[in-house]
Amino acid sequence: MDLEQARKELIALQDQMSAYDHAMGLLSYDGETTAPAGTAANRGHSMGILSEIMYKLSTGKETVELLEFLDAHKEELNQKEQRMVYLLLKDIRFMQKIPMDEYVAYQKFVVECEDVWHNAKVNNDFASYRPYLEKMVDYCVRFAHYAAPDKDPYDYWLNEYEPGINKETCEAFFSTLRERLVPLIHKVAQKPQVSDSCIKGDFDDARQEALAYWLMDLIGLDRDHVGLSTTEHPFTTSLGSHLDERITTHYYPEDLSYSMFSVVHEGGHALYDTGSDDNLAYTVLDGGVSMGIHESQSRFYENILGRSKGFAKFVFPKLQELFPEEMKPYTWEDFYKAINRVQPSLVRTEADEVTYTLHVMIRFELEKRLFAGELKVADLPREWNRLYKEYLGIDVPDDKRGVLQDSHWSFGAFGYFPSYALGSAYGAQFLAKMKETVDVDAALAKGDFSAINAWNKEHIWHYGSLLTPAEILQNTLGAPFDPAYYLDYLEAKCKDVYGL
Amino acid sequence: MDLEQARKELIALQDQMSAYDHAMGLLSYDGETTAPAGTAANRGHSMGILSEIMYKLSTGKETVELLEFLDAHKEELNQKEQRMVYLLLKDIRFMQKIPMDEYVAYQKFVVECEDVWHNAKVNNDFASYRPYLEKMVDYCVRFAHYAAPDKDPYDYWLNEYEPGINKETCEAFFSTLRERLVPLIHKVAQKPQVSDSCIKGDFDDARQEALAYWLMDLIGLDRDHVGLSTTEHPFTTSLGSHLDERITTHYYPEDLSYSMFSVVHEGGHALYDTGSDDNLAYTVLDGGVSMGIHESQSRFYENILGRSKGFAKFVFPKLQELFPEEMKPYTWEDFYKAINRVQPSLVRTEADEVTYTLHVMIRFELEKRLFAGELKVADLPREWNRLYKEYLGIDVPDDKRGVLQDSHWSFGAFGYFPSYALGSAYGAQFLAKMKETVDVDAALAKGDFSAINAWNKEHIWHYGSLLTPAEILQNTLGAPFDPAYYLDYLEAKCKDVYGL
Repeated sequence: MDLEQARKELIALQDQMSAYDHAMGLLSYDGETTAPAGTAANRGHSMGILSEIMYKLSTGKETVELLEFLDAHKEELNQKEQRMVYLLLKDIRFMQKIPMDEYVAYQKFVVECEDVWHNAKVNNDFASYRPYLEKMVDYCVRFAHYAAPDKDPYDYWLNEYEPGINKETCEAFFSTLRERLVPLIHKVAQKPQVSDSCIKGDFDDARQEALAYWLMDLIGLDRDHVGLSTTEHPFTTSLGSHLDERITTHYYPEDLSYSMFSVVHEGGHALYDTGSDDNLAYTVLDGGVSMGIHESQSRFYENILGRSKGFAKFVFPKLQELFPEEMKPYTWEDFYKAINRVQPSLVRTEADEVTYTLHVMIRFELEKRLFAGELKVADLPREWNRLYKEYLGIDVPDDKRGVLQDSHWSFGAFGYFPSYALGSAYGAQFLAKMKETVDVDAALAKGDFSAINAWNKEHIWHYGSLLTPAEILQNTLGAPFDPAYYLDYLEAKCKDVYGL
Repeated sequence: MDLEQARKELIALQDQMSAYDHAMGLLSYDGETTAPAGTAANRGHSMGILSEIMYKLSTGKETVELLEFLDAHKEELNQKEQRMVYLLLKDIRFMQKIPMDEYVAYQKFVVECEDVWHNAKVNNDFASYRPYLEKMVDYCVRFAHYAAPDKDPYDYWLNEYEPGINKETCEAFFSTLRERLVPLIHKVAQKPQVSDSCIKGDFDDARQEALAYWLMDLIGLDRDHVGLSTTEHPFTTSLGSHLDERITTHYYPEDLSYSMFSVVHEGGHALYDTGSDDNLAYTVLDGGVSMGIHESQSRFYENILGRSKGFAKFVFPKLQELFPEEMKPYTWEDFYKAINRVQPSLVRTEADEVTYTLHVMIRFELEKRLFAGELKVADLPREWNRLYKEYLGIDVPDDKRGVLQDSHWSFGAFGYFPSYALGSAYGAQFLAKMKETVDVDAALAKGDFSAINAWNKEHIWHYGSLLTPAEILQNTLGAPFDPAYYLDYLEAKCKDVYGL
C-alpha cells in the first residue's frame, strides 16, 4: 500500500462514515421530534439495515488493513491523522469484539427501547419498560465484557464517556463534593426560602419560543447552522458535521425557566460542536471530545453564565417585553433569586445547581449496583425512591417523575451521568482561568458573549476531538483538575442568594 | 444460482434499498421542513455519498446478475415477484446508462438547486436561479438521451411520470379540455362574481393547525403513521415504507383555504400510499404507482370531495367553532361558493378547479419548448408572463408569483405537471364509477369517509405499484379513459355555483 493513497482513503472512509452518521442521526432525531407515534418499527427496520452496513464498513477487512497500515506508519502522519487513526482503530477494536448479529440486533433494539421508554414515561408505567431495561443492562454488561474482558463493566462505560475516569475516581470526586455540599444545603435550608413565583404561571408556547430564539442569538449561536425543535427530553445532536447542529427544548406553560435554561444548556453543547475548525468536518475529529468536556460547556452556559447576576439583569427586560403582565410585579433581582432557588426536587433536569449533583450521585450508585449484579431492574423504582428520600429528603410520588424521568438508560447510556457532575466542576475551574484575561461580568452585563465565546473557542472548541480531555484540561488550566473551584463557586452563589 | 435463494435475495435487496430511500427521503424532507438555512451543503455532501452507495447497490454486478437470473425464470415467479423484477430492472437499465460520476454529481446538484430555488423565490431573484435551472435542464435532457437515445427527451420524462403518455397524447388531451373549458370560463366571467370574503382575513397559525389535524382525522388518515409539518411548497413523502408517511402544509394568515385544501390534497396522496397492503412494505411495490394515479387521488380528495356541497356543509360548523368571530357573517353556502370561486389567478396551487388546467398547459408548453431547444431558460420569465396573459388574461407582477412559484423544476421534475391535469380527469371518472355502489353525497353529508376510502382502497390503494396505471384504469373503470367525465363535472359545478 502507498502512504499517500492510504491518507486519501482515510479521508474517504470518514466521508462515508459521516454520511451514515448523518442518516442515522437524522432518523433518531426525527423519532424524537417529528415522527408520528406509530413509526418506531419502520425506523428500527431502516436503522438495523444501515447500522449493519456501517458495521461492515467500519470493521471490514479493507478498513482494518488501511488503518493498521497507517498505524504502522504513524510517525509519518501529522497530528490530526494520528488521532483519526487512533480513534477509528479504538472503535474498530471495540466493534470487532462484538458479534455482528448482536450489534445489529442491538441497534434495532435501541430504537424500540427508546420508544417503549417514551410511552412508559407518558403512561407512568414502569412495568412495560422493565423487560426492555433488563435487556439493555444485559447488552451493556455483555458488550463491556466483549470489549474489555478483564475490566469491570461499569468502569468500562465510565471511561467511554469520560476517558480517564473509573468508579474509584468518581467515588473520590463525589465524596469531596459531599463533604461541603451536604452542610451547604443544610445551611440554606435554615434560611428563609426565596420565592420563584416570577417564573411560575401560564406562559404560552409561542412567546416561550420567541424567547428561545432570542436566547440562541444572545449566546452567539449561528442559526444558519443550529436548528431548534421540541421534544420530550431535550438533547443536542450533530448531523453529519458540526455545520448542521440541532438543539431541542420542551415548553412547559407552568414554568418559564425550564425551556430557557434547557435552550442555554443545549446551546452550550451546540456552541462547542459548531466551534470545531471547519477543516475537521466529515472526520472523526469533528465536534466535542467527551461527555465531561461537553457538559463542562453546556453547564457553563446554563449555570455559570446563565444563572449569573449579570445575565439575569440583562435578560429580565426581554422577559418584561414578552410577558409584560406576568412580569409586572417583579424586578430582575426577583428573577435572579428565582432561578437560583435551592430546593431538593424530583427531576434532575429541573434541579438547582447545588442539589443537582445529588441527583447524579443517586444514578451513579444505582448504575454501579446494577452492573455489579447487586441490584435488579425490578427493584430499581424502590431503590430510586429510597435514595431520593435519603439524599434529598423527598418522597417520589410516581415513576414518571422518578426512575422513568431520564431517557439515557433507554439508549444504553450507563456511566454517562457522572460526566454531568464532572463537567460542572470543570466549568467552575475554566471560569477562574477565563477571568484572568476576560472581564466576564462586564460581558454579561452587556449581553455580549463574543469575548467569552472566543476564549472557549481558542482553548476548547476549535480542537474538536483532536486533543484528549486530559490534554484540554492541562493545556487550558495549567494545573490539575480541582473540584474546590466548583465548591467555592457554589458556596459564593448561596452566600449571595441566601445571605449565608 | 438457486431460485429459492434468489427469491430471498430479491427481498433482502429491496430491504436495503428501502433503508437508503428512508435515509435520503428523510434528508430531503428535513431540508424542506426543519433544517437550518445554512445546512444545504452538508446535506448535499451526505446525499452525494449515499446516492453513490445506492447507485452501486442497485446497479452492481451482483444485483444485475440476480435480477437477470430472476427475469430468465419469470414464469416460475408469482405476480408480485415478476413486477418487482420488472421495476428494478427498469431502474437498473436506466442507471446503467448514466455514467456514475454524473449520477452522483446530479444527486448533490439537486440538493443545491432546491436550495437556490428556495432562496430565489423568497428574494424574487430569478437571476440567481437561472444558471442552476439551465444546468438542470441540461441534466434532464442528457439523462433522457442516455436512457432512451432514440426517444424525444420530453416524451421520455412524460412517460416516466405517467407510463403510457407522450407529447401527442398530452396535446390531444389538453385540446379536448380547451374546447369546453375556454367557453366555460368565458360564460362564468359574464356572471356576477361570487364572494370569497369568508375565507379571507387574518387567521392565526395555531387555529389553522388545529383545523389541519381535524381535517386529517376527518378524511381518515391514521395519525400514528402520517405526520404533518410545515414547508414553503406543500408535498407528501413516504419514508422507508408506507408505514411512515409525511404530509406538509403552509399556513397563510390571509387565506384560510390554502392550508385546508393543501392538507386535503396531500392527505389524498397519503391515503393512497398508506393504503398499500402491509406485505408490500420495504419493496418497490410499496406506495402509489404513478404521478397520474397519485394526483387522481390527491385531487379527488381536494376537489371532488373537498369542494363538494356536502363537504362544505359538514366542515362549516368546525370553522364556526374555531373562528367564531370571523365566521359570524357567513353561512355554509357562502363558504361553498368561496371555495369554488372561478377566477384566473397567478399561482397554480391556489387556482380554482376550472382554471387550474390552464396553469398546467402553460407549464407543458414551456417544458416542451425548453426540451426542444426552442426556448432558453433566460427567456423563461418573459414567456411565462406572456402565456399567463394569453391563457389566463392576467399580468404577472413578479417572478416570485410567476416562474419561480413551483419547486418541481428545481429537483428535475420536468414532465410531471401534465399528471396533475390527467389525475384530475381520472378522478372525475372514478367518481362516476364509485357512485354506482357508494352513496357519496350521503357519506359527505355525515362526514363519514369510510365507504369512500374502502372503495378507493379496494380498487386502487391496496395494490401499491403492483398494477400499471393502465391496468388500474381498465380494472376500475371497465372502460377507456374519457376526459368528458371531467368536463361534465366542471360544467355542473359552474352551473351550480354561478347559475349558468
